[in-house]
Amino acid sequence: MSKSSVLTHITFLAALSSASAFAGSTIDAQRVQLDALKAKSLQSELSYQVIESLTTEVGARMVGTPANAKSVSWAVNKMHELGFDKVWTEESELPLWERGTMQAHIDGPYPHNVVALALGGSVGTNGKDLKAQVIEFASLADLKAAPQGSLKGKIAFVSFKMERDIDGAGYGPAVGARVIGASVAADKGAVAFLMRSVGTDTNRTPHTGISRYQPDVKQIPAVAISNPDADLLVNMLARKQPVTFSLNMKGTGYTGEKVKIANVIGEITGSEHPEQVVTLGAHLDSWDVGTGAIDDGIGVGITLAAGHFIGQLPQAPKRTVRVILFAAEEVGLFGAKDYVAKHKDEMANHVIGAEWDFGNGNIYQLHPGVGTESLNEVRDFANYLAPMGVALATTNTAKGQSDMEALGELGQPAIDFNPDGLDYFDYHHTENDTLDKVNQAALKNNTAIYTLFAYFAAQSDIDFRK
Amino acid sequence: MSKSSVLTHITFLAALSSASAFAGSTIDAQRVQLDALKAKSLQSELSYQVIESLTTEVGARMVGTPANAKSVSWAVNKMHELGFDKVWTEESELPLWERGTMQAHIDGPYPHNVVALALGGSVGTNGKDLKAQVIEFASLADLKAAPQGSLKGKIAFVSFKMERDIDGAGYGPAVGARVIGASVAADKGAVAFLMRSVGTDTNRTPHTGISRYQPDVKQIPAVAISNPDADLLVNMLARKQPVTFSLNMKGTGYTGEKVKIANVIGEITGSEHPEQVVTLGAHLDSWDVGTGAIDDGIGVGITLAAGHFIGQLPQAPKRTVRVILFAAEEVGLFGAKDYVAKHKDEMANHVIGAEWDFGNGNIYQLHPGVGTESLNEVRDFANYLAPMGVALATTNTAKGQSDMEALGELGQPAIDFNPDGLDYFDYHHTENDTLDKVNQAALKNNTAIYTLFAYFAAQSDIDFRK
Repeated sequence: MSKSSVLTHITFLAALSSASAFAGSTIDAQRVQLDALKAKSLQSELSYQVIESLTTEVGARMVGTPANAKSVSWAVNKMHELGFDKVWTEESELPLWERGTMQAHIDGPYPHNVVALALGGSVGTNGKDLKAQVIEFASLADLKAAPQGSLKGKIAFVSFKMERDIDGAGYGPAVGARVIGASVAADKGAVAFLMRSVGTDTNRTPHTGISRYQPDVKQIPAVAISNPDADLLVNMLARKQPVTFSLNMKGTGYTGEKVKIANVIGEITGSEHPEQVVTLGAHLDSWDVGTGAIDDGIGVGITLAAGHFIGQLPQAPKRTVRVILFAAEEVGLFGAKDYVAKHKDEMANHVIGAEWDFGNGNIYQLHPGVGTESLNEVRDFANYLAPMGVALATTNTAKGQSDMEALGELGQPAIDFNPDGLDYFDYHHTENDTLDKVNQAALKNNTAIYTLFAYFAAQSDIDFRK
Repeated sequence: MSKSSVLTHITFLAALSSASAFAGSTIDAQRVQLDALKAKSLQSELSYQVIESLTTEVGARMVGTPANAKSVSWAVNKMHELGFDKVWTEESELPLWERGTMQAHIDGPYPHNVVALALGGSVGTNGKDLKAQVIEFASLADLKAAPQGSLKGKIAFVSFKMERDIDGAGYGPAVGARVIGASVAADKGAVAFLMRSVGTDTNRTPHTGISRYQPDVKQIPAVAISNPDADLLVNMLARKQPVTFSLNMKGTGYTGEKVKIANVIGEITGSEHPEQVVTLGAHLDSWDVGTGAIDDGIGVGITLAAGHFIGQLPQAPKRTVRVILFAAEEVGLFGAKDYVAKHKDEMANHVIGAEWDFGNGNIYQLHPGVGTESLNEVRDFANYLAPMGVALATTNTAKGQSDMEALGELGQPAIDFNPDGLDYFDYHHTENDTLDKVNQAALKNNTAIYTLFAYFAAQSDIDFRK
């Protein structure tokens, strides 16, 4: 076959397959409107403009900071501006953790300044120098295997290096040390816990993230050092001389106070079944380092833009599109927990949901978590998205990314749109999470996909639980 | 022609061309030894080990710091260890500049912390808050064009962005603002000078570097902010509301004291003309940010390894190979100036020199600065290097890179080996200049080339001035 006849043949087969799959389906009925929404959203820079506004006018917005409170009013205003017809906040509170100063230093045998960040939830040193010898462990498992009492008066250091994967698969094996490493180390007698940042970059920009002390174990400082600093420490330890380290952290820790947080919720009210909601989620808070452009400014940008495009239609879809900007995701999904507590009796009306809280590249996969009947309709939708690079996952087990998982656990069906996350953990929870990192081409594509999803689900009568 | 017959034909032509070019030349006489040196150095990890040792056991070594003094004894010991038969230091002194603390902050309309570094030589604010409105200029030329007095009480901000080029060509148009921007701004009445870092990266790691105050102009703080911070400031200024900024710098400035510096010099003494020296140069000092792996640990590694390989030969080459590790390059080439002051009467015996102080990739070009007669021999040497990816430049105007230029100005012929510098200004003068950034494959290749150059020049009788 010639090249052109091969292409013709493939096109014909594709058309046949589409015709067969789409015949009489929801997608067939929606195609003209979906095509129009796709064209409009692919041309728009709105989601980028939203991220630019959030990162410039608010910036870093860690729970407990003035900027976090400001982000709430920013979001309310932005939703009104973008044409959401109902906008409200839902407040709750949580214990206030504050980051203070940090000095980290290798004292000997070769003195070096070290670039370090307290992990979220860590205690400090009350402004006093904590000096001790560093003992290295290749992994959290190795640290766990250390004999009781063997780290008495020492600083434990886990040097495990995260791997880079398109789906962020390297995060799981690395993040355990961040969450519980300090308590495991303290349980063996350690006076502080150091770890190589959970990140795939080679920058002197350490990665923070939440850590949690186990009950009945002494709370010791929990600190991430940058990848190059971890390399240096590893190289120094390889010389088999004792390496001493000092930490001085002032003003870091839980204050004992409570801080108010707020989910910000906006709706495009449905024209036939306003009580039935299709949820689009993202989180509004960020860490205090960077400006939270990737995590989760992108999610805020995509969901607000999708809501706006739906709201601009001549007629609203049958069901309500609800954008939920969750509070306090970074420090323990507090906003999501509050949401499900307040809305647990309405979960049957939560038709389906999707969150954006991962990745900076093109969506390559639609991972459903729906009933077996409705899976056929979701497959049609995935076929519609195929020319945009999206393939249907082989499993039907999605619960919803990040915050949305709390809704999934209460029965809300979900779609996880999986994007290329190869560079995500270069920036995640670091000073480098800034606007310039946003992949603008992928952002347009992904905004279009969320817009199409919102319309597909809200304009349909599909029961995604079935 | 078949693929294999084409290859055969090309090989034949290449052989013909080599035979013609090398007949009776220095290269012809040296070929066996050059091939052996090439094989040995390409297999060795020595230059990397030297960089690892310097960055781990000494680290950042800014003039005036204890680590700078330590780097001198490190270098003396390393030269002895690597078999240099004469090793000595040459001391001089210069005014001491110290970096203190830095707090930089956008106050309004949208408050943000800013990641900033004082430029070398800058004054501070004596620990007081300096608050003023920011006025942006797209370039140093635009700042120069501002009317006298127009910046009274303002902070001038040059937002010019450096371009990425293989030969670092983007540095020239960007670095002028770093060197004289503060004085140009002060002359118009400004109270401080901010600039976008001279760098091609997108990290929150600002680029320091030397700045110089002009006489008779008020000395105002001179500060580089990271590229993402510069983007943020530009985006905020684009909203056409006044942007206010505050700086607080304590302990930054010249102290009025003098500090000792030392060039470290090691030789493999020539077997026939020991008074004739082939010089290999690099600089031993670094900035205080990063560990100076790229700038100029690579130069230290390459030149010490090249000297070692020459010293390991059964018989030393006819001429002396002299490795000069210059002091205080970063703060104004003080070591190079001291070297030429002390050795100006011996310059006729400085046969030829090459420095390494740029780039992290493979050498792609040999740029000579020799007499017209000896250019033929240099062409032969370039032909010998061609299989390693090296092409002869079309001009014969090299004076020597960096420090070595001071020797070139006094008549020393030079070879500039130009490497791929595409990523050099991602790390240059930042916290990110660390060991992991060293391109180890390129380092082996480049170390081999410097070793071959040292042998070619030292084992020859060529007068490179002719």
